[in-house]
Amino acid sequence: THPGWERAGDALERVYPFPDYSAAVGFVMRVALAAERRDHHPDLLLSWGKVKVSWSTHDAGGITGLDTEMAALCDRLSAG
Amino acid sequence: THPGWERAGDALERVYPFPDYSAAVGFVMRVALAAERRDHHPDLLLSWGKVKVSWSTHDAGGITGLDTEMAALCDRLSAG
Repeated sequence: THPGWERAGDALERVYPFPDYSAAVGFVMRVALAAERRDHHPDLLLSWGKVKVSWSTHDAGGITGLDTEMAALCDRLSAG
Repeated sequence: THPGWERAGDALERVYPFPDYSAAVGFVMRVALAAERRDHHPDLLLSWGKVKVSWSTHDAGGITGLDTEMAALCDRLSAG
């Protein structure tokens, strides 16, 4: 498992804090674009000041290599 | 309560289905912009093909007039 990520059921989850709504929305958009590019889409929970990302491969019934790859990509995107 | 919306704890929730990810992301962005304009921010859960919106006024400990107003605005935004 990547640092900062936790297993929750059959998904890989991480909560990212952000200083304001604009930063959180920007992150959601960047993850959404990456998700569309790879045709692999997470659950994204956008609240004020934080975003929870949840990756799972439903067809495989759990976490795959693609999920951990996308998790690492989220970490890079969250760093700006 | 507005049609299609349900109380869940101290929040007002609705799930909107969308035909694809692009449409769901577009809706999230429109709601996010409206939320920022009114400085009142929902929980938005973006998944493939659907978005769950949850409104609550945490300072007031429940659902206020502003929440029902924003819920109606979401209905208008979801209609295109």
